[in-house]
Amino acid sequence: MLGLLRAHGPLSRGELGKRCGLSRTTLYDILAGLLADGVVVAREAGPGTGADTAPRGRGRPAETLALNPAAGQAIGIDFARRAVHVAAVNVAHEIVGSAGEPHPADLPWPERVAIAAHLIGTLTGGPLRLSTLTAMGVGVVGPVVGPPDETAGAPPLETLLRERFGMPVLVDNNTRLAALAESIWGAAAGHQDVLYLRLSHGVGGGLVTGGSLHRGAYGLSGEFGHIPVHPTEGARCECGGVGCLETVASVNAVLAAYRAAGGQADDLADLAAAAQAGDTLALGVLREVGAMIGTVLAALSNAIGPQVIVVGGELTRLGAPLIEPIEEALAAHVMRISRHRVGLRRATLGDAGGALGGIALVLHESPLLSRYPAEPDPEERPMNHSRRP
Amino acid sequence: MLGLLRAHGPLSRGELGKRCGLSRTTLYDILAGLLADGVVVAREAGPGTGADTAPRGRGRPAETLALNPAAGQAIGIDFARRAVHVAAVNVAHEIVGSAGEPHPADLPWPERVAIAAHLIGTLTGGPLRLSTLTAMGVGVVGPVVGPPDETAGAPPLETLLRERFGMPVLVDNNTRLAALAESIWGAAAGHQDVLYLRLSHGVGGGLVTGGSLHRGAYGLSGEFGHIPVHPTEGARCECGGVGCLETVASVNAVLAAYRAAGGQADDLADLAAAAQAGDTLALGVLREVGAMIGTVLAALSNAIGPQVIVVGGELTRLGAPLIEPIEEALAAHVMRISRHRVGLRRATLGDAGGALGGIALVLHESPLLSRYPAEPDPEERPMNHSRRP
Repeated sequence: MLGLLRAHGPLSRGELGKRCGLSRTTLYDILAGLLADGVVVAREAGPGTGADTAPRGRGRPAETLALNPAAGQAIGIDFARRAVHVAAVNVAHEIVGSAGEPHPADLPWPERVAIAAHLIGTLTGGPLRLSTLTAMGVGVVGPVVGPPDETAGAPPLETLLRERFGMPVLVDNNTRLAALAESIWGAAAGHQDVLYLRLSHGVGGGLVTGGSLHRGAYGLSGEFGHIPVHPTEGARCECGGVGCLETVASVNAVLAAYRAAGGQADDLADLAAAAQAGDTLALGVLREVGAMIGTVLAALSNAIGPQVIVVGGELTRLGAPLIEPIEEALAAHVMRISRHRVGLRRATLGDAGGALGGIALVLHESPLLSRYPAEPDPEERPMNHSRRP
Repeated sequence: MLGLLRAHGPLSRGELGKRCGLSRTTLYDILAGLLADGVVVAREAGPGTGADTAPRGRGRPAETLALNPAAGQAIGIDFARRAVHVAAVNVAHEIVGSAGEPHPADLPWPERVAIAAHLIGTLTGGPLRLSTLTAMGVGVVGPVVGPPDETAGAPPLETLLRERFGMPVLVDNNTRLAALAESIWGAAAGHQDVLYLRLSHGVGGGLVTGGSLHRGAYGLSGEFGHIPVHPTEGARCECGGVGCLETVASVNAVLAAYRAAGGQADDLADLAAAAQAGDTLALGVLREVGAMIGTVLAALSNAIGPQVIVVGGELTRLGAPLIEPIEEALAAHVMRISRHRVGLRRATLGDAGGALGGIALVLHESPLLSRYPAEPDPEERPMNHSRRP
């Protein structure tokens, strides 16, 4: 019934009956339940609606049934390193809205959950009505989150969320969720082989291979930030490695390189302004960073063979001074034969990507998820979640 | 019927009847056809066979039916850069044998096909009996094969093979086929996420992701040889790029590096002997090459998340002096969290891997191929095959 209303918009009882093929009694029973739950609403069929042209039962008021746009939201939350983002879709899977709030990197988890609850309230205009929703999709920075002693003894995030929202949560890597969202609604919609790279305070990504979101053995994949670019003489990375892409292409790494070169920038906006103004220091730093990013993308492209490469994350706000060197290095190192076949695109979903991917994960309706586990393997949890509260 | 005989071995007519549930008349009709085709053979049930314990029809001779091991071979051919390899399995999918013959790199295609035909003859002990076989699986070096003018106007390989063997051929990248074979019968049998790297005269590989052989958009994936390791100051690669892994880790590149360092080696066997004898030049060269290979494997592992990494190809015959530096660099650069989870293994199928993978492709019975196209997309052919005769 919900599927019919989603597909065709408002319908009269008669039309619904014809399309679903159920007996009148059964149909009315089901509709009564949906109306009582507030999932479906009845409205008078005004002139000009499709329902108006349908043959009208003699004694029955001219009424159509429709999905209640205020009911049954699916919610996604992205707990990024320094911000919480939420997104909501209605029961028709239309994006109701998204919102985000920055916070210090070391904010404790109960406060992050409180921010999420507040943001959800602003989106849905009041307490959640989740009667048709069975779970909440949540993205987190994985696999390394904060020092373990900071969070020792704290309840796991899933527990915090379940207590707050009264429903189970599905947790996955937030960058992989952003890759999923970009492949469903964003820059790579409709593509079967997608490589998504997010350049933010952390650097990560996600893969769609052969029409499926790729999880990787043990849930580990898309860790593009930990591809070594200076394997011998590079900086020590948070992950324990040396010279990882993240040590040169994260927001802070780029700002640090600019400052080390003699530039002055408090934040990315300052650097972007300098680059736009033609500051040669800024342009030089971004050329070097872009070349390393593009080389890694070419390596991954030769190995994996995507149709589309999507780059997103705060760093891409630097625009052409960063994107052009990425494109040049990609073209220089991708196999000649695929140079004109692999397109580089900017992500289109912005900060909401991770949260939207959480929704997609919960709804599990995209063919991209046809082979994706509905629940992470419990065996993996110690690895993916051990360092998270 | 063939499935029952494959699964249970020789069976009497009575046992076959019980297991297949067909009427006696239908069963006997089908068996008569299979016997006439030579696919199934009848033999007297001697003492000690399973069939001997089955209740015997009174007037009927004590006879069992079995697959004819000489009939219905599936054939795979691997046209490598400097050798032809063939493999055959019988109708029960048992490997009948494999064989190979080296040749100069520039040997024309008709002569390579003649070598393949000769090798197949030695395997099957005579002219092919292929009545139950619908296609032949063939691996080729892709996507760049020889200079285009050398082969201009020559008939495509598929035509040469079809004329010679009278059946259609399925052609795919030979290294990807080797990855498939290692994941079915070899070092990674039973694994769902496999990364296979072949270090030979060329360097390439293949991926199994989430239980499927990965093809990549446009059939391009597994080109690990063209991952840049010296993106700015490296040697020019055959692919048009600079500093690709193949420019440092192919058989010839390693020999050249040893000679450039002052060593003397005509071939890989000489270098292997030098390394085994503790020649510090040889060990130094292999340490450096191994470190680059291991770093690339770590990068790919962090990006893709395999359970098992398999390395094969001639170069691995150098043994520990090469393999240990690979393992060290892999451990140093793979994310700490997966260091004890990702195993590095030596390939077990040797030179026959590509040909065996061709057979697997044709039989299309592995779940690894459940999402793999049975025929390459015709749109891709210009790219994959344009430079092949």
